[in-house]
Amino acid sequence: MNEFSLIKRYFADASYVRKDVLVGIGDDAAVTKTPENQMLATTTDTLVQGVHFLPNSTPQDIAHKAIAVNMSDLAAMGAEPSWISLSMSVPELDEEWLQGFSEKLKQLTEYYSIQLIGGDTVKGPLSITITAQGFVPEQSILTRSGAKNGDWLFVTGTLGDAGAGLDILKHDLNVEDYEDKQFLINRHRRPSPRVIAGTVLRRLATSCIDVSDGLLQDVMHIANTSDVGVIINLDKLPISGALGRNVADLEQALTYACISGDDYELLFTVPEEHRTTVQTALDSYSVPYTCIGQMTGATGKLDLRLDEEPFEFKEPYAKGYQHF
Amino acid sequence: MNEFSLIKRYFADASYVRKDVLVGIGDDAAVTKTPENQMLATTTDTLVQGVHFLPNSTPQDIAHKAIAVNMSDLAAMGAEPSWISLSMSVPELDEEWLQGFSEKLKQLTEYYSIQLIGGDTVKGPLSITITAQGFVPEQSILTRSGAKNGDWLFVTGTLGDAGAGLDILKHDLNVEDYEDKQFLINRHRRPSPRVIAGTVLRRLATSCIDVSDGLLQDVMHIANTSDVGVIINLDKLPISGALGRNVADLEQALTYACISGDDYELLFTVPEEHRTTVQTALDSYSVPYTCIGQMTGATGKLDLRLDEEPFEFKEPYAKGYQHF
Repeated sequence: MNEFSLIKRYFADASYVRKDVLVGIGDDAAVTKTPENQMLATTTDTLVQGVHFLPNSTPQDIAHKAIAVNMSDLAAMGAEPSWISLSMSVPELDEEWLQGFSEKLKQLTEYYSIQLIGGDTVKGPLSITITAQGFVPEQSILTRSGAKNGDWLFVTGTLGDAGAGLDILKHDLNVEDYEDKQFLINRHRRPSPRVIAGTVLRRLATSCIDVSDGLLQDVMHIANTSDVGVIINLDKLPISGALGRNVADLEQALTYACISGDDYELLFTVPEEHRTTVQTALDSYSVPYTCIGQMTGATGKLDLRLDEEPFEFKEPYAKGYQHF
Repeated sequence: MNEFSLIKRYFADASYVRKDVLVGIGDDAAVTKTPENQMLATTTDTLVQGVHFLPNSTPQDIAHKAIAVNMSDLAAMGAEPSWISLSMSVPELDEEWLQGFSEKLKQLTEYYSIQLIGGDTVKGPLSITITAQGFVPEQSILTRSGAKNGDWLFVTGTLGDAGAGLDILKHDLNVEDYEDKQFLINRHRRPSPRVIAGTVLRRLATSCIDVSDGLLQDVMHIANTSDVGVIINLDKLPISGALGRNVADLEQALTYACISGDDYELLFTVPEEHRTTVQTALDSYSVPYTCIGQMTGATGKLDLRLDEEPFEFKEPYAKGYQHF
């Protein structure tokens, strides 16, 4: 079977269909129509087996994560997802694997109302690259660079679960309770990007990023590009029951929450005058959120506090996930 | 060094800068503005070492080819290139390699007036995925599906050089003459996509594709999606002097021209009433072209002729490049 048959067979039909796609899969390029007055957000993420997912991941897990990390990037810009392109490197033509992957892909395109508009399939070690596009009005773009001294620091959902889930899979963390174990593993394998929250935060948040590399590393991306500092109240960090119940102590929980990545929650800053509006808006969409700190004038300074006292991690933890 | 430092150091500055990029590299996604009344063409191509380029290719060669194959896809849609995203998998942090790659990348973005708007760098076997975007007015989109019975079949440039160049590098073809050898190798390593020709053909060609998989395979993409057949006059195929002088006989030259891929010329169909206009327009941009046949009403039928006689290749040549 050649590349074309492969793509045709598994991916030509593996997508939700949108009216703004004039030419879809099957030509030299896709042709799409961006609505008037909307800007286009574009992001690319590559997942490599052994680096971003474990070798025993199912094709469904891999499809889920590949889509999720890209949706999360769009969410962090306040963009509404529209189209994706998929480039896959696969070591062999495993029909069962491709079937599982493309079925999950189709389900996810329906969930996010996005269309698969093209891609490429090559032979090689398993890796998945997705380029995702979405719309955002020019005045509503969320960036990392707008945080101001005094803005409140918020995060959606809970932190650290995905890191704990990965450690369970790597046998570095033992969790007896079945439901807790499944919850944490699921948070690693099947993250839920905050697409709705991203659009809710338009014009309200002054900056936004998704937590992919770990809270401390990601908050410093905001601080450094915004020329501000940050105080994080560690006692306020949203820790799930499943994580809290299965770690040795508070410091281990805080370590997961601060250092481990892949949570795909949104971390954002809100000026005092928008604080109530943001909270009401997120409540109305049932998006969980927590205020975990405040931005300061001390450019580039990270100030960790536990019960209002300065805090330092005892271990020389790496500041987030390093790809090299 | 982590992913961010890597990207920042080598790629943040490795691009031409455009005014329609509102947010470039360094945030969760890029944000760009598509001109009013223009549609967006998007294409993705992945090049893998050992499959799409030889292990001894220079970083400059790889950058060139990765950009060229994507520009060629946009050209085949009649689109004007605007932005690219780059996802790289590299086995190690080889600074000299990255330097060479990013310098060439910058030079090419300047040549095509395109901006690198984002990407991802992961650790793994060497491979390069580029997603390229470009503009095309809705009424000017060139597809594979509009060819009509009676339309003339044209191709730009010459065919078969890239295949011969690859065979020289693989020691499957011996070329003594230094200039011929370099010309053919260069056609393989540094293809010249027909971006200007693509925009010239808007509203004039009824269908268009780039020759990446080999003439016979690519013409059948047009024939099958357009529900027509095709007569190709093999004696008319544009064979470069360098190719013609260094093959054993006419059949070997025709084999390269028909079967080997990677020429990145445009193959397109033109109705009789636009034939003169197309020729004049391409002449005015100094784009070489040749009329090599005509579309027929015999849906899906490929009719090869040499000096007006039916022709069959003696060898059981594969019909174009198969990825698996």
